[in-house]
Amino acid sequence: MSNQTQASWVPVSPDSDFPIQNLPYGIAQLPGRRGAVMATIIGDQVVDLAALLKVGAFDGIALPATVFKQNTLNAFIGLGRDLTAATRARLSACLSAVESSFSLLARRHADHILVPVSQAHMLMPLQVGDYTDFYSSREHATNVGMMFRDPAHALLPNWLHLPVGYHGRSSSIVVSDTPIRRPAGQYLPAGADQPAFGPSQRMDFELEMAFVIGKPTNLGQTICVDEAADYMFGMVLFNDWSARDLQQWEYVPLGPFLGKNFGSTISPWIVTMDALEPYRVAAPVQDPAPLPYLVERNRFTLDIQLEVTLSASGLAPQCISRSNFKYLYWTMAQQLAHHTVNGCNMRVGDLLASGTISGPAEDSLGSMLEICWKGTRPITLADGSTRVFLHDGDTLTLTGVCSQTGLPRIGFGLCSGTITPHEYSS
Amino acid sequence: MSNQTQASWVPVSPDSDFPIQNLPYGIAQLPGRRGAVMATIIGDQVVDLAALLKVGAFDGIALPATVFKQNTLNAFIGLGRDLTAATRARLSACLSAVESSFSLLARRHADHILVPVSQAHMLMPLQVGDYTDFYSSREHATNVGMMFRDPAHALLPNWLHLPVGYHGRSSSIVVSDTPIRRPAGQYLPAGADQPAFGPSQRMDFELEMAFVIGKPTNLGQTICVDEAADYMFGMVLFNDWSARDLQQWEYVPLGPFLGKNFGSTISPWIVTMDALEPYRVAAPVQDPAPLPYLVERNRFTLDIQLEVTLSASGLAPQCISRSNFKYLYWTMAQQLAHHTVNGCNMRVGDLLASGTISGPAEDSLGSMLEICWKGTRPITLADGSTRVFLHDGDTLTLTGVCSQTGLPRIGFGLCSGTITPHEYSS
Repeated sequence: MSNQTQASWVPVSPDSDFPIQNLPYGIAQLPGRRGAVMATIIGDQVVDLAALLKVGAFDGIALPATVFKQNTLNAFIGLGRDLTAATRARLSACLSAVESSFSLLARRHADHILVPVSQAHMLMPLQVGDYTDFYSSREHATNVGMMFRDPAHALLPNWLHLPVGYHGRSSSIVVSDTPIRRPAGQYLPAGADQPAFGPSQRMDFELEMAFVIGKPTNLGQTICVDEAADYMFGMVLFNDWSARDLQQWEYVPLGPFLGKNFGSTISPWIVTMDALEPYRVAAPVQDPAPLPYLVERNRFTLDIQLEVTLSASGLAPQCISRSNFKYLYWTMAQQLAHHTVNGCNMRVGDLLASGTISGPAEDSLGSMLEICWKGTRPITLADGSTRVFLHDGDTLTLTGVCSQTGLPRIGFGLCSGTITPHEYSS
Repeated sequence: MSNQTQASWVPVSPDSDFPIQNLPYGIAQLPGRRGAVMATIIGDQVVDLAALLKVGAFDGIALPATVFKQNTLNAFIGLGRDLTAATRARLSACLSAVESSFSLLARRHADHILVPVSQAHMLMPLQVGDYTDFYSSREHATNVGMMFRDPAHALLPNWLHLPVGYHGRSSSIVVSDTPIRRPAGQYLPAGADQPAFGPSQRMDFELEMAFVIGKPTNLGQTICVDEAADYMFGMVLFNDWSARDLQQWEYVPLGPFLGKNFGSTISPWIVTMDALEPYRVAAPVQDPAPLPYLVERNRFTLDIQLEVTLSASGLAPQCISRSNFKYLYWTMAQQLAHHTVNGCNMRVGDLLASGTISGPAEDSLGSMLEICWKGTRPITLADGSTRVFLHDGDTLTLTGVCSQTGLPRIGFGLCSGTITPHEYSS
């Protein structure tokens, strides 16, 4: 929609995640405003959309008067494709360096609508009805299978036939920079036949991304794989924190529970599928071919370069993994078609996460479990200390960037969280 | 709170589930009312609480003016224990045969506040943030383990140490009488090594109950087992419909997904924990003793007699199981303490379901899977037809009743659903 070479009158550094081609949405608490507002970001300036609406920038688009004065993006997303696309086009016009009545209007009110990002406090942008976590990286599933099950048959029999997934906890999804308390729970000490109780000793992260449902379905309705893109609004970075010792003891036969539901972190800005469209690339060839309801006429994924940094208290962030969203074997369209093939209904704001995104190279693994191979290959930090899992005070940050020759760089900002010590509080 | 022998001025038949000692809450569409209202039921009369509020029956209780004009009970429940208890006491006074200014007021307006239940259309009473399903019947877990895993070690190693549970889908929880469409999906045909796709051939029900969270917690907060009752608002019957063929193919290693999330049915009336309190009984003795955070100072459960009827098109309902909530090995308090021991937060309206409630006797099994022992022991209906799983047109109904000597009978009404044929609709 927006021209790939277009510039903004707001200064944007070339290494910013947020040029005018991005324009992601978030919910911000801004100085001098009562309550939260819906916002976008350009360069290092947060744009107050409620203020922009008030000066008339969205005149002619049938937006409800309070749509940008909400605690979540759900109401806006729920307006549907016509209105959200018109909003994005108008926002682009307002912020464009190309002169128009809208850019002149926005520039005139720049003092009221722009707030330096350092002064913005970002909030959880969505009310997530249901959160589903897939397991769509072949490399990750293979690694886990080798470590915990049969190395000779690392992939389970169903894995190549369907995008394995399960339901996660939506109440404990938090926005970037929310501290993550080390959970306590039951685990089976090595060699023991009775469980023990205590703070997790195997705190891990999972490098994931998630997409946001933009269009609801009714119970009984299915989404066909070639129409699945119509139901996706945007994407975020997703850290599915995991307590491996709790998870290992509890997960047979009904799946992960307390090993996961103490917290998941998302990045604050929802990057729209519109902004991501130029970065489509071919998805991995599937062999065996999946069943017909999972066969895509136009199979694609997205080239999103992912990076994980670990920062121990007082140390500079150190890169511990470089992966890419495009490695995933099952696409978002396949995940959504599979999820609804039985009639399961979707609601606006639902999150579907990818599962850990590990790549083929040794430095592209998406969890401490894999990077340190179940505790057997420690990594060394700048101060000489080692890690096989995360320590209290460690900060884990995910980033994601799209940059291809001839296209502007767009990114997701930071998805960050620090482990705080366990304390038992009732 | 309300006298156990108290009667109402509204006629109540002795076999009604809804004497004045019950007073459950639901959301109803009533003739002549715009929008839904919050309601209770006494005998066969639905009581419009919004109308009752309007005539002044709740004067002196600090209820928001629109609290009974809502699509869900969440706002009411969220008012907290003081206000909901005061509301229940006042309701009891209004409907009591004992004369008071409140009973006189309600009787004077009886025409406006009472609606025959036959004219009420009951709606989904809750906005369920998260739904968790436990697996707390020892008999059920043993039966399933014998059928699908090692009969010699039917219970998995973790089962006696923690209430196994997993996250389910909240979007597809529907109220009683909502048709349930037979889902399609992948399954592994007997003897095959490649999956097939089609409508489920193993449609099943699960006899469960669920409790509703009445008081929220913050992320990081734990609920101690002896305080867990303070966080429970009430209970419903719960049918966790299951497509066994889909479930069996998909569930390793991350748990059930499409085999469950096409629909779950709850009864329309939420029976409060206050109403259920007189029916407390001892819970099964646990051996081995669980870890300290799961040890209850005052361990109890509830004596709720459960019945399952199956009604094929045109046939009278036929009882296929009689069980009891009291058989469950893990109590609701243990489920909630376990669920939050890692800091997972709860929201008002969250549902925690028991898992299939099978008992020790052969006629007390809570699923077709167990009743017909994985398809090997068909049941015969009145017309001579047989079942090992559910057919299209079959109606499955759960009921639950508390009745002990010296106490009034209270019940949950019906939790009912009819299987409709599969159709592929996108």
